Amino acid sequence: MLLFTLDATSPVPRYRQIVERIREMADADRVEAGTRLPPTRVLAERLGVNRATVLRAYEELWALGYLEARPGSYSTLRQRVRVATAGERMPDALDWKELATPAAAQVHEAYRRFAALTGEPPSPGVINFGTLAGDRALAPVDELRRVVARLLREEPGVVVEYGAAQGHAGLREAIAVRLRAHDIAIGADEVMITNGAQHAIELVAKLLVAPGWPVVVERPTYSAAVPLLRFAGARLVEVPMRDDGMDLDALAARLGRVRPAFVYTMPTFHNPTGITTSQAHRERLLEICHGKRIPLVEDSFEEELKYFGRAVLPIKSMDRDGVVIYLGTLSKLVFPGLRVGWVAAPRKCIERLVALNRFASLSTTTLGQAALARFLTEGRFEAHVRRVHATYRKRMTVLLRRLRETMPEGVSWTEPQGGYTLWLRVPGSPAHEPALLEALAAVKVAVAPGSIFFASDPTELGLRLSISNLDEGAIAEGVARLARALRRVVGR
Amino acid sequence: MLLFTLDATSPVPRYRQIVERIREMADADRVEAGTRLPPTRVLAERLGVNRATVLRAYEELWALGYLEARPGSYSTLRQRVRVATAGERMPDALDWKELATPAAAQVHEAYRRFAALTGEPPSPGVINFGTLAGDRALAPVDELRRVVARLLREEPGVVVEYGAAQGHAGLREAIAVRLRAHDIAIGADEVMITNGAQHAIELVAKLLVAPGWPVVVERPTYSAAVPLLRFAGARLVEVPMRDDGMDLDALAARLGRVRPAFVYTMPTFHNPTGITTSQAHRERLLEICHGKRIPLVEDSFEEELKYFGRAVLPIKSMDRDGVVIYLGTLSKLVFPGLRVGWVAAPRKCIERLVALNRFASLSTTTLGQAALARFLTEGRFEAHVRRVHATYRKRMTVLLRRLRETMPEGVSWTEPQGGYTLWLRVPGSPAHEPALLEALAAVKVAVAPGSIFFASDPTELGLRLSISNLDEGAIAEGVARLARALRRVVGR
Repeated sequence: MLLFTLDATSPVPRYRQIVERIREMADADRVEAGTRLPPTRVLAERLGVNRATVLRAYEELWALGYLEARPGSYSTLRQRVRVATAGERMPDALDWKELATPAAAQVHEAYRRFAALTGEPPSPGVINFGTLAGDRALAPVDELRRVVARLLREEPGVVVEYGAAQGHAGLREAIAVRLRAHDIAIGADEVMITNGAQHAIELVAKLLVAPGWPVVVERPTYSAAVPLLRFAGARLVEVPMRDDGMDLDALAARLGRVRPAFVYTMPTFHNPTGITTSQAHRERLLEICHGKRIPLVEDSFEEELKYFGRAVLPIKSMDRDGVVIYLGTLSKLVFPGLRVGWVAAPRKCIERLVALNRFASLSTTTLGQAALARFLTEGRFEAHVRRVHATYRKRMTVLLRRLRETMPEGVSWTEPQGGYTLWLRVPGSPAHEPALLEALAAVKVAVAPGSIFFASDPTELGLRLSISNLDEGAIAEGVARLARALRRVVGR
Repeated sequence: MLLFTLDATSPVPRYRQIVERIREMADADRVEAGTRLPPTRVLAERLGVNRATVLRAYEELWALGYLEARPGSYSTLRQRVRVATAGERMPDALDWKELATPAAAQVHEAYRRFAALTGEPPSPGVINFGTLAGDRALAPVDELRRVVARLLREEPGVVVEYGAAQGHAGLREAIAVRLRAHDIAIGADEVMITNGAQHAIELVAKLLVAPGWPVVVERPTYSAAVPLLRFAGARLVEVPMRDDGMDLDALAARLGRVRPAFVYTMPTFHNPTGITTSQAHRERLLEICHGKRIPLVEDSFEEELKYFGRAVLPIKSMDRDGVVIYLGTLSKLVFPGLRVGWVAAPRKCIERLVALNRFASLSTTTLGQAALARFLTEGRFEAHVRRVHATYRKRMTVLLRRLRETMPEGVSWTEPQGGYTLWLRVPGSPAHEPALLEALAAVKVAVAPGSIFFASDPTELGLRLSISNLDEGAIAEGVARLARALRRVVGR
């Protein structure tokens, strides 16, 4: 016997009230499975509603699995599997650690190690030399807001359609134009847009790396490339960085013995060391890869940050016959939150990367792509670059001067021609890193710890310092703190 | 001997004019390698400029690789590798087909096959039953514009910071709230944001599939999942769809013999058939996977499109102990151009997916995520869903009625309870698909051809029809054309 009434004042439709009351009773076991519901006519009379209202409620209860019967003859309450509520959650039935593939487990391990080392966002009072994002205070957000507003008025299609897997045609064209300013002669059809530069590296790895195949990386190299390449199955072959870039004699020797899927290099403002290679180094690197017919992946994530004026052209600019896969992004200068990067490569390479993108994430956000296209073609990016160069140049100048003034004997560092970062070498064994980081935490300085940039065991004790989010005063104070901490560590 | 003059009226700085003139001469071989440049003092006098101007030009020429000497004694032109221009491009030195891995080659092959079958965007006059994107005419773009404008004023951080790999916290919370409306009791920490639902499938495949491992899919299944799963190395085990969903007897029998990495299902508005399974089917499917401890991936890309009112709850709503990985998106209803999808799963599963995302594409566009978060929390999404349901319900009703009125004998179709699509079966062998598509092209009707939805050889001749972008008149006219074409094909 079902005992309930309806709330005539409620905005909830009456059929739905009936559904909810009966569900509540069934879920709370106040009526048992096997109980027969009253015929629709009977319940309708009792509740003072139309018979169709009850019929609709019974239909819904049937669809929800509360009634045994087939549609048309709703009658018996059945033992329904209950909706799980947060309160009555059981322990996981599955062991996700067991279920994960070995490759995925390795990535998870790297993620945890990174999180432990780079950790929480720095707390107030900490001077953070760790981040590589451009200074948010300099970001032209108001300009972007106006660009987006006009965009959504004039081209609503950018949010209501699926984008092309190769990327927004207008942005590809704008990037091709921008690359020509760096003497890279390329058409929009040789450009594809990615979900940031990280994703560009991933697509290249997917195209060229099968499990067990070697890939040449620099030592040290971009930290987040390592787990990505290993996930693709790459066996990493490390070639040491010297003061002038990757050791090309060592590279040539390695290539005599192994045939890598590609050589991964950051010739401009190398991450983490900040080193920019010379024209002669670039020519020889290209010649080596060309001679061996090995793709050269040029990651130029900070191409636009040459603020000390000395011009060096990308390796891609000399790439007459398509050996270089060039990776770029504007995220280091504007709007990392838009997630836009790109690959510039020969068409036959691009079309294969596009296929991989089509069946993985489909496309990059069209809103962000179209907004950046306008930002570039309207000259706003160029103007922004000019504005911020002066700022970053001053910051790097202060950093270098303060290091010269304060660093204890034995500490050395690179002198970048642009970009955000330099590499600080501390005398001692790489095994001392935890103690070094502890000393830095004590003086409230955050850095990127050197060990994360090594694909195998680190060969030196180093730190990456970035000036991207610190004004000149903070840099000066930060270096003073750093000097205090290092004097304790080095002095030991 | 260098012969050139400077343009005193040009806005280009004079040092840069010197650089450009000498580069032009060297690149055009008008001066040979080995030529000595005049001393800075001599050239400065000749051009009527400051000596420092010439020095700066020589420094830049050295950095660009045009001079042999070391900085400080610029003198001899060297044989520089020339910048490649579009005109003098050589044939590719690398064979990208050879360099691609077998897995990547397979994806490229699938991409070309898809492109050939689904092809160009339909030309004017064609009635397009092929697309699955929501109707752009119904999209609340003006509302989005206002939301974005306020967002960029109030939270500029969303574009100037790198997003979290798990996704925007506000959006994860808003999605958790929305999922509770579907009786899925879940917290924001059990949700991760992906670059669309396609990317969600990819991350799950990366986590759970190693080369050679089996994965259960429906036959037919979502076309773009197939190349993705194969790229991950999956061996696809197909279980046929019946009128009430995946054949669970067949599934149970298969699971007696193979242990798949996961079972992939679309219980609600299955793509391509449009079938929605019953509560009883859902309970049994969950029970089967639970019993075998096999993850059940529930792809609910059209969860919000239940416009025929019959409520069925997601399998995830009954998932008390974490067997179900639930994939969702709002792209079918609003703003596919924002590229936002999600995974809802146990925390230990989510944290592993986050790690994979961190080292692949880093994060999804924060701008799009934050905009959708506001769109959801301000009730705009809910209101939009109510508005469009009526429209799509009418369209589907017209499609079903017209099919009943016009289809030749032997043609059959599914009767969906919502969603955009139904599945039309045509008598005859799947080998007749090219002839069928030709007949449709002749009457100017575009559809999604059935063969793309089969992981192996198709077992029936079918078409997927979608009403998402056609008004009622176009649907009626489209069905009339379809009937004409089918009468010819079936009549043979």
